[in-house]
Amino acid sequence: MIVVMSKNAPDTDIDAVTERLKSEGFQVHISRGVERTIIGVIGERTEEVFRLASMQSVEQVVPVRRPYKLVSRDFHPEDTVVNVGPAAFGGKRVIVIAGPCAVESEDQVMQAARAVHDFGLSVLRGGAYKPRTSPYSFQGMGVDGLKILAQARERYGLMVVTEAVDRESLDHVAQWADMVQIGARNMQNFELLKAVGQIQKPVLLKRGLSATIDEWLMAAEYIAANGNRDIVLCERGIRTYETKTRNTLDLSAIPVVKQLSHLPIVIDPSHSTGQWNWVAPMARAAVAAGADGLIIEAHPNPTEALSDGPQSLNLPHLGELVSSLGLIAEAIGRTV
Amino acid sequence: MIVVMSKNAPDTDIDAVTERLKSEGFQVHISRGVERTIIGVIGERTEEVFRLASMQSVEQVVPVRRPYKLVSRDFHPEDTVVNVGPAAFGGKRVIVIAGPCAVESEDQVMQAARAVHDFGLSVLRGGAYKPRTSPYSFQGMGVDGLKILAQARERYGLMVVTEAVDRESLDHVAQWADMVQIGARNMQNFELLKAVGQIQKPVLLKRGLSATIDEWLMAAEYIAANGNRDIVLCERGIRTYETKTRNTLDLSAIPVVKQLSHLPIVIDPSHSTGQWNWVAPMARAAVAAGADGLIIEAHPNPTEALSDGPQSLNLPHLGELVSSLGLIAEAIGRTV
Amino acid sequence: MIVVMSKNAPDTDIDAVTERLKSEGFQVHISRGVERTIIGVIGERTEEVFRLASMQSVEQVVPVRRPYKLVSRDFHPEDTVVNVGPAAFGGKRVIVIAGPCAVESEDQVMQAARAVHDFGLSVLRGGAYKPRTSPYSFQGMGVDGLKILAQARERYGLMVVTEAVDRESLDHVAQWADMVQIGARNMQNFELLKAVGQIQKPVLLKRGLSATIDEWLMAAEYIAANGNRDIVLCERGIRTYETKTRNTLDLSAIPVVKQLSHLPIVIDPSHSTGQWNWVAPMARAAVAAGADGLIIEAHPNPTEALSDGPQSLNLPHLGELVSSLGLIAEAIGRTV
Amino acid sequence: MIVVMSKNAPDTDIDAVTERLKSEGFQVHISRGVERTIIGVIGERTEEVFRLASMQSVEQVVPVRRPYKLVSRDFHPEDTVVNVGPAAFGGKRVIVIAGPCAVESEDQVMQAARAVHDFGLSVLRGGAYKPRTSPYSFQGMGVDGLKILAQARERYGLMVVTEAVDRESLDHVAQWADMVQIGARNMQNFELLKAVGQIQKPVLLKRGLSATIDEWLMAAEYIAANGNRDIVLCERGIRTYETKTRNTLDLSAIPVVKQLSHLPIVIDPSHSTGQWNWVAPMARAAVAAGADGLIIEAHPNPTEALSDGPQSLNLPHLGELVSSLGLIAEAIGRTV
Repeated sequence: MIVVMSKNAPDTDIDAVTERLKSEGFQVHISRGVERTIIGVIGERTEEVFRLASMQSVEQVVPVRRPYKLVSRDFHPEDTVVNVGPAAFGGKRVIVIAGPCAVESEDQVMQAARAVHDFGLSVLRGGAYKPRTSPYSFQGMGVDGLKILAQARERYGLMVVTEAVDRESLDHVAQWADMVQIGARNMQNFELLKAVGQIQKPVLLKRGLSATIDEWLMAAEYIAANGNRDIVLCERGIRTYETKTRNTLDLSAIPVVKQLSHLPIVIDPSHSTGQWNWVAPMARAAVAAGADGLIIEAHPNPTEALSDGPQSLNLPHLGELVSSLGLIAEAIGRTV
Repeated sequence: MIVVMSKNAPDTDIDAVTERLKSEGFQVHISRGVERTIIGVIGERTEEVFRLASMQSVEQVVPVRRPYKLVSRDFHPEDTVVNVGPAAFGGKRVIVIAGPCAVESEDQVMQAARAVHDFGLSVLRGGAYKPRTSPYSFQGMGVDGLKILAQARERYGLMVVTEAVDRESLDHVAQWADMVQIGARNMQNFELLKAVGQIQKPVLLKRGLSATIDEWLMAAEYIAANGNRDIVLCERGIRTYETKTRNTLDLSAIPVVKQLSHLPIVIDPSHSTGQWNWVAPMARAAVAAGADGLIIEAHPNPTEALSDGPQSLNLPHLGELVSSLGLIAEAIGRTV
Repeated sequence: MIVVMSKNAPDTDIDAVTERLKSEGFQVHISRGVERTIIGVIGERTEEVFRLASMQSVEQVVPVRRPYKLVSRDFHPEDTVVNVGPAAFGGKRVIVIAGPCAVESEDQVMQAARAVHDFGLSVLRGGAYKPRTSPYSFQGMGVDGLKILAQARERYGLMVVTEAVDRESLDHVAQWADMVQIGARNMQNFELLKAVGQIQKPVLLKRGLSATIDEWLMAAEYIAANGNRDIVLCERGIRTYETKTRNTLDLSAIPVVKQLSHLPIVIDPSHSTGQWNWVAPMARAAVAAGADGLIIEAHPNPTEALSDGPQSLNLPHLGELVSSLGLIAEAIGRTV
Repeated sequence: MIVVMSKNAPDTDIDAVTERLKSEGFQVHISRGVERTIIGVIGERTEEVFRLASMQSVEQVVPVRRPYKLVSRDFHPEDTVVNVGPAAFGGKRVIVIAGPCAVESEDQVMQAARAVHDFGLSVLRGGAYKPRTSPYSFQGMGVDGLKILAQARERYGLMVVTEAVDRESLDHVAQWADMVQIGARNMQNFELLKAVGQIQKPVLLKRGLSATIDEWLMAAEYIAANGNRDIVLCERGIRTYETKTRNTLDLSAIPVVKQLSHLPIVIDPSHSTGQWNWVAPMARAAVAAGADGLIIEAHPNPTEALSDGPQSLNLPHLGELVSSLGLIAEAIGRTV
């Protein structure tokens, strides 16, 4: 940590800060510049140093270490691979997850699952608990939806990922599904993060709509610190001023996350663009940028979808997209 | 609702849309323009119309009604007053809530509570459950913290507002406190909103860091639709590109919310600015703009605070601020 | 400046950085921490240090000084007062500038000017050169517009502020007006900033739609470094994700700017809100927060305005607003 | 256009709006809904309708047509190809522009130019006029820099693109270069847009840091409406709250622009990421997403660069990147 003192801070203030740091067990290096004195603080703890920000003549406290540890590449230099049945997130193969936004009926899920299977994919998505902006919108089928997903898994040999929205739904999801999704709106629902840290299922952690990459990795750290290290990150668009797309897909997060963390990262081009015909180009871009996977909304009949129809591919379009990804993956030495 | 068809949409597509709307029970008015046809849709339901967005040749679906109802001024033209003991949010008096970010000890809370009382205020804040960005930061004292707050209430005759972070903490908060706070990071934790909608305590609903005003009012609608209409909105800064302040305080939300909704609105100048010496000017601005209240962090000893010290006023500064607000309030026909 | 080396940077890399710094005339203090080495760099120049960011093992270069000098409070601790005739921006009196968005006709300007005069104000605004988003929108009356403003100045004894959009229009504006406005879209038109730095008229420098406070002060530094120190800053709303208001008025910029700089700051509640009935509360808030002035759009007949009608006050509303500001100003020891 | 009247608007207000519209020559369709009346307005002009927004009981004016015409795909359905010598922007080949941020010396430019040539590329970039945030930073070599670029063009048979910052520099750039760049900070410098619209050189129009896609296309419309239709759009990152990257590269702009406009679009992965090792993945992503070109900063010695060193590739890295792009392009049926 570095403490920057304000211009012409009196010696008494500089002394007060260094005394307090020493009394708390830190080592201190003082550098007197032309206008400002800076204090290098050596020690493991950070909260105590940040607290100095409200002392007299302290202008700024600058961290020099990442706030996360378990999920950082500093701590764990090799790439982590998260296995969900046959799907190895973070391996050579780019994993494409697909399926409807919401579970609506057995028929709908089975049609989607068959297509997912036929296109050579291994992970099915579908929401049974739907966090919706409006209390008057369809809120999901709950446990009945989970059972339909489980049936699809049996019939087509697929892995299932679905969202949990609180401790109660987490219990059900952990029972019926293979991977638990934490949605963007719950990325800083710390009680839910703690709970998911205590189960033994892989987690798909979506980035919050306005979460910085550091906050996202801190959310992952919550899960890891509670015992669960099978975490896959998912970028799904961030909130910006641009309204043509539903959100702005931040593909630069791929190389940034790869540098800062050892966790795999997948991209959701459906929620971010919000329009089905923009999904394929962004999916291809994600693979080219080095994403470890994709999660794509596909529906047997998008114009009848109870949730997010406009951004859902129909099943033939899903098939075309999947087959177009192979050459891109190959171009960077991977497969789909 | 209005459906805008794309340029030169063929009649078959226009017919398909109008047929579908009619079959779902809507009345339809067609307006053929120079380049585009627009379809006025008359009916109460909106989801069905939005679903048309993925039909052939549909360019845009434009809502003409607000997505919220119970919290809208259209539905309830008079201002709502939310009573928390003697404090009437939405009345002539501007209610100033003050206290520490986190409950740390009995001594700390009692000092703060005495000051709050002595400065003529009636509502004490203090967090017992703290949603923190880092899993390694102080997470709050939990029920023990609530008990300390309740003691302070007894001793100084204050009302207490404190945050609930999930169903379990909500049960405790509802038992010990007078007003339940839903924090910014939980504004779209819909399960928590449903739960708080089912209790009989007033709610302080903070705006999410990147929530639009419409989403914020929809979150309030969740609470209202579940049965609890004693809702006070709280603007606490939104996330923007500017980093000098912790967040950007959106004071324009005051007149906007007053126009769209009948609910009272209070302002948090502490979390938004993130620096104690910017709190007073923004508090005064909030009152001048018509806020129904303020919520201000104050600590007996900010440099020792376990959370948010840099943005906390010390108690003498709190006193000075409160006394400076009276003339501002008077200038617009209110009191503090 | 501080150079933070990456974790476990080899000594050869640390040596390479320190050698380069020394060879460029900097003094260097090295602080070896638990994981990282930090290098304190002492010297006046900053560009050379930033350039190190691309050297091997350099993780971050952290500035400890402001990038601006002439406009910083460090350099010039006392408040600057900018005089525009009788109007002293930065003095005890809060200066209210008012007038139409665009000059449309002699009659329109004269009506507005008379009202401005009658309400006791001393500065008239009005655009003769209009930067418009669409090439098909009204682009302003040019020199003819400037002449109308000059007539109004003569008739009602007002000072005139109007926008220049390039060197050519600047020549005309400098000839006919008392204060030159640089608009938000030109805040980083550095050629225009240099030009306005070389004339002897006070400047009203609007903040860019997405300019940080540091970038805004750097724009002011361009003007000051070219010789003109009569600069008044103007916050007019920043671009955020919120769409209910045209932009988000960042009133926190007032205390932030006051801390960082000695320049006066005025607030534009018209462009930021984009709706006339939200102007008055935000104007009052600005005064309460410590603004040195306001700039308000007012039009004799807003529904006929060629530009920005929806956000313009009519003249009676302007009068009401001005008279409501007096008590607010008084509450903080100022006048209007 | 659609005019939405407020809830329960009285007939007199509805009549006032329709009368005014009719008197201005519009046709009007009235649709009376459950709560609100909407008025469909048929006619070519839009400004007159927007002006209604300040009339009594008008809640909202909703445009149904794009604000731009010449650059819209509605107006010109086929893709436009912009030829800069042998480089055809918008054709099958993805055009890679490369070179240093700023022209610093003959030696530096020649080294870069030789590499650009040797890697099989045909367009060299390099800034002679540098818009810099600080007045104390290197501002470019001006005409001397242009002459060096022209020498490099002669020696290596390259096309040259370089930035103009005002009318004066535009005259010089138009004389010495093959393509004129309008930088992000000047995207709404409308006087410069008009000037560049009147010359006969292709234009590379960068998107402003906080420009919406609509505003960007309107800037292109300014150029086109003034007579120059050889416009290539360039996305270079937008300003968001995320600070890990210099800006957030909005690759979704590629499919969005392709849908709305017929103009080619190139991507700048250097300015957007701000860090050289993130350039290659984003360049590959851009090609996969369908970009018509790339513009990449490369420098013979990035640690000595006078501008933007940290985001510049060295020349061997540029070569590696270019050769990695071929397979990606091939995967989507294009070449590099």
